[in-house]
Amino acid sequence: MKQMEHKVVFEPTGRHVFALPGTILLEAAALAGFIIQTPCGGAGNCGKCRVRITGGNCPPSANCKTVLGEGDVANGFRLACQAQLTGDLVIEIPATSLFETQQQILVQDSGAPVDLQPAVCKHYVELGLPDQTDSRSDVERLRAAIRPDTFTHVGIQSLRTLSGVLRKNDFKGTAILVDHELIDFEPGNTETQCYGVALDVGTTTLVGTLVNLKTGTESAIEARINPQTSYGDDVISRILKCREEAKGLSQLQRVIIGAINDIIDALTTATRLDRASIYEIVLAGNTTMQQIVCGIDPSALGELPFVPVFTDALQMQAEDLALDINPNGQVYVFPQIGGFVGGDTVAGIVASRLDREPGTTLFVDIGTNGEIVLAHNRKLIATSVAAGPAFEGARISCGMRAVSGAIEKIVLDGDLRMNIIGNVRPAGLCGSGLIDVAAELLRVGILDPTGRILPPEELPESVNKSLRKRLVLRNDQVDFMLAQKSETATGEPLFLTQKDVRELQLASAAIRSGINILLRLEGLQPMDIGGVLLAGGFGNFIRRNHARRIGLLPPIPCQRIRFIGNASSMGAKRALLSVAEKQYAADIAAKVRHVDLSLSPEFQMEFGAAMVFPDKDMGDEGVDLNG
Amino acid sequence: MKQMEHKVVFEPTGRHVFALPGTILLEAAALAGFIIQTPCGGAGNCGKCRVRITGGNCPPSANCKTVLGEGDVANGFRLACQAQLTGDLVIEIPATSLFETQQQILVQDSGAPVDLQPAVCKHYVELGLPDQTDSRSDVERLRAAIRPDTFTHVGIQSLRTLSGVLRKNDFKGTAILVDHELIDFEPGNTETQCYGVALDVGTTTLVGTLVNLKTGTESAIEARINPQTSYGDDVISRILKCREEAKGLSQLQRVIIGAINDIIDALTTATRLDRASIYEIVLAGNTTMQQIVCGIDPSALGELPFVPVFTDALQMQAEDLALDINPNGQVYVFPQIGGFVGGDTVAGIVASRLDREPGTTLFVDIGTNGEIVLAHNRKLIATSVAAGPAFEGARISCGMRAVSGAIEKIVLDGDLRMNIIGNVRPAGLCGSGLIDVAAELLRVGILDPTGRILPPEELPESVNKSLRKRLVLRNDQVDFMLAQKSETATGEPLFLTQKDVRELQLASAAIRSGINILLRLEGLQPMDIGGVLLAGGFGNFIRRNHARRIGLLPPIPCQRIRFIGNASSMGAKRALLSVAEKQYAADIAAKVRHVDLSLSPEFQMEFGAAMVFPDKDMGDEGVDLNG
Repeated sequence: MKQMEHKVVFEPTGRHVFALPGTILLEAAALAGFIIQTPCGGAGNCGKCRVRITGGNCPPSANCKTVLGEGDVANGFRLACQAQLTGDLVIEIPATSLFETQQQILVQDSGAPVDLQPAVCKHYVELGLPDQTDSRSDVERLRAAIRPDTFTHVGIQSLRTLSGVLRKNDFKGTAILVDHELIDFEPGNTETQCYGVALDVGTTTLVGTLVNLKTGTESAIEARINPQTSYGDDVISRILKCREEAKGLSQLQRVIIGAINDIIDALTTATRLDRASIYEIVLAGNTTMQQIVCGIDPSALGELPFVPVFTDALQMQAEDLALDINPNGQVYVFPQIGGFVGGDTVAGIVASRLDREPGTTLFVDIGTNGEIVLAHNRKLIATSVAAGPAFEGARISCGMRAVSGAIEKIVLDGDLRMNIIGNVRPAGLCGSGLIDVAAELLRVGILDPTGRILPPEELPESVNKSLRKRLVLRNDQVDFMLAQKSETATGEPLFLTQKDVRELQLASAAIRSGINILLRLEGLQPMDIGGVLLAGGFGNFIRRNHARRIGLLPPIPCQRIRFIGNASSMGAKRALLSVAEKQYAADIAAKVRHVDLSLSPEFQMEFGAAMVFPDKDMGDEGVDLNG
Repeated sequence: MKQMEHKVVFEPTGRHVFALPGTILLEAAALAGFIIQTPCGGAGNCGKCRVRITGGNCPPSANCKTVLGEGDVANGFRLACQAQLTGDLVIEIPATSLFETQQQILVQDSGAPVDLQPAVCKHYVELGLPDQTDSRSDVERLRAAIRPDTFTHVGIQSLRTLSGVLRKNDFKGTAILVDHELIDFEPGNTETQCYGVALDVGTTTLVGTLVNLKTGTESAIEARINPQTSYGDDVISRILKCREEAKGLSQLQRVIIGAINDIIDALTTATRLDRASIYEIVLAGNTTMQQIVCGIDPSALGELPFVPVFTDALQMQAEDLALDINPNGQVYVFPQIGGFVGGDTVAGIVASRLDREPGTTLFVDIGTNGEIVLAHNRKLIATSVAAGPAFEGARISCGMRAVSGAIEKIVLDGDLRMNIIGNVRPAGLCGSGLIDVAAELLRVGILDPTGRILPPEELPESVNKSLRKRLVLRNDQVDFMLAQKSETATGEPLFLTQKDVRELQLASAAIRSGINILLRLEGLQPMDIGGVLLAGGFGNFIRRNHARRIGLLPPIPCQRIRFIGNASSMGAKRALLSVAEKQYAADIAAKVRHVDLSLSPEFQMEFGAAMVFPDKDMGDEGVDLNG
């Protein structure tokens, strides 16, 4: 029987998502991009994740009443980490329940977020007409009407149109300023039509967020596969193309600009917005992606010592990159740290306020190019690893992105149970499902620590018949059947193959060995880590204990692991909303020390060790959970 | 007999000109663009104009020995206002003899002018190669090698090429900075190949000066007729074209950009320079010209209250204007004052240091769009007048620019004697010749104060037969024959027509009425004027007493009138050579008060009065020189 998804609307933004019955509110909120804080690790005893149901029915969980009190529960408050969807809901998320980085954006103060200070400003003006006692130049007249120091420069394009627009509209209209430059003047009052796009440019995935710069709210999100993946999965293959082919760079730039323009098109179509109302794009990506988008040859990143061309933030015209926004619009490219650690990591630190975390905190952005930052003793050190695209669904036999049809959750409970995004027939396996199945197969003993899928004759006796039936010998390898052909969307069966497990091992080991080297450099043990901030497009949905079980994360209690969502997108959005955040980004970029793993004599050893799955999961209390 | 011109080389720049025998050295220097100071008005008694002959023979004048002393004369020193050319010469102009504004440029200090601080700088660097202990980005590496604070921005174009050029050239090469932006990086040491062009954009004439930004010296000068003249003589006709024709502005912009590119082409061809070695253009023109060059519609200048679009200086890419210099080159457009008083006037004030003149000083820039600035009591007030192009040779029946073949000097001494530029057969009359002939005709009584050329029967008896024969009745008007057909280059006779005199009256009255209104506004009389700085393309060559005789200038002693040459070009050159001069220009533009003559109730009256030539020239001592 096909289950219906429920519509969940979040206030005060009005953003909505559809989610399966039984989804906990915390996950539904994460789907919508709201990261609710869970200091107790979702155990349902700290009460920090309280949300209020303002529409629809949501039965309180047992500890709701204990933790929140009868009065609050009667007033609609629920623990987001416990309460489950049973129907359509309208949920109000108190700012205090949001993860710190999101609080400021959503805190409403007289209708506008308190820190809203975007580079792009619009001012509607009604100027006095020139006469013989006042024959100031058009620019002087306009400047005086806004504020004498508001703009110091006027772009040549706006100078060319200003005079005509002023005179055709009785000297009334809207001035558009970016930083201290007048970039355009529009007829009428268009102050409310003021948008920007935050772009997270990943090696595999591109995410664009349309942001209303007047209100600070998100209007739409669109994601696309980075079309450069057709020229190679990882940054090294893209760099090689630039090094070896005369037109390699321009080809890679053209396709990614095309995809970004597609995203802009989808964002504006969805919101019925004129793309001329978009005045700034803030772009965050790793060093290779940022250079290619800007048309800057990344060849030097393909040889020791992996040198990027720039580290300071860049500002340029949208026209310079052929990006389809307002013709006078601007592009801001995040400052970079060094090597492959680029603007996306800086944006992630900006979003997570990692430098302000107390104690020792690890930031892990899981992507094809994975980045790890260790904050310890007020110092930040960062490195990058080539994790490969397995977590984003690529290089896996039945891999796919976390979109409708993807198996996003797997439980081996007697037989195999799964959640499929969109509640349709399964079409493939996304990153979180991949981690789930590996962790569960390890738990039940079908997968051994070396990553071998055991043949039926080698299985522990505890493995039941239903699971045994899923082991299939194909091409001299044992594969694990996730779904029979009668169950799938395509009519073809879905397998986790032995090769898929190897890909997962490589990806996981890359991240984990990076973490281990940074800890070693600072003389730290896993248990010294006070918190792990887990970022990445899929970061919201993976099971923390499963990530720990497969060794992707070190053995620390789950409650120390926090999901912070697509931190790069969030940081880009913050930079779009406030010039102070751009300054903060510059400070961060200058402050983080870059560590080149290839220089670490321990790297190969660490990587090899991390290829082996942990024997067992020691659990939150250090207890063997596999026993 | 055709006279040979002599070659005169000026040191320390090496610039040379050709001039007629008998030319005084002061004039030869002016031809080469060097304005030698003459506080005594060229009377030969102050000794400030001393120059030294270092090659060739130049007989000392009588007062050379008295004023300079025997020893100096023996060492080659001469009074430039007295000594005449008798053959080829090499002349050294001591910096102390130059008009103050030129001194700083030419004063040599360890091979470079002391105030040389151009926006464009080149730095040859040999960078350490990146290695595993030093994997800074290319930009960081370069910045550290120059000076940490040298550049704060990097243009996207140079980012796109930097990495490749560095690696192809062992990290050696030349960084090019404009202001605080890295605009390019070139292989090899190109520090000496660093040029800019100062552009004076007049309504009728365009003058480009190629300047070596490393040495501060001029390399070449080229002038062209502004091709917009084919669409109308004055700024009003150009503005009308923009108002009335949809493509009027783009047409006017295209032709002037074409002419500027022609000038750049000629400058680089003459000096065998690669135009890619030109990194900055500094442009000064009146408000209409500056707006049209930039593609900014000047329509609002065509209606009351004559509003320009901008007054601040503009900076843009040479590419924005399709100017053919280095593809990453920059354009600086002078700040403007208001109305029609634009960047050329600001540049003229910058060149003349008018605001630092003691007492009351008048700055008069004679061009099709004439500008007058009065400095009094530390205040500066400015206005513009539509003088028309008569002084630049247009609208005059046999008018021409001051180039080879132009009659540039006329004396009525028994019969008519003339100097022709290039010592060829006369082809026409340039501005200085026009003023000469009018002043001389007034003196001998052939022209009456109303501007009528008298018929033979009305002439005073003192007019001799030779002159009388030159009066010819044509089309019911009496014209004055300048040259018979047998004497001219074209085989056609040359006349000063009655209509030509009317054009001269209009041009002269426009300038003079502007002067008078400014004096009135400050409650001043002509004799209160301590000095007149006479600027304009032809300013060097007109006879001061003749300009006074026709009423173009007020009745003040000639020694108070100083020629400062093409002050707009000189100011543009100064801005090219020093960012401090650009700041000075901004200060000047903000400081000068603009006076709109059309608002002055006295203007029509003053203009009408100034149409009548003065009865007589009161002379330097207030004595009637016509008697």
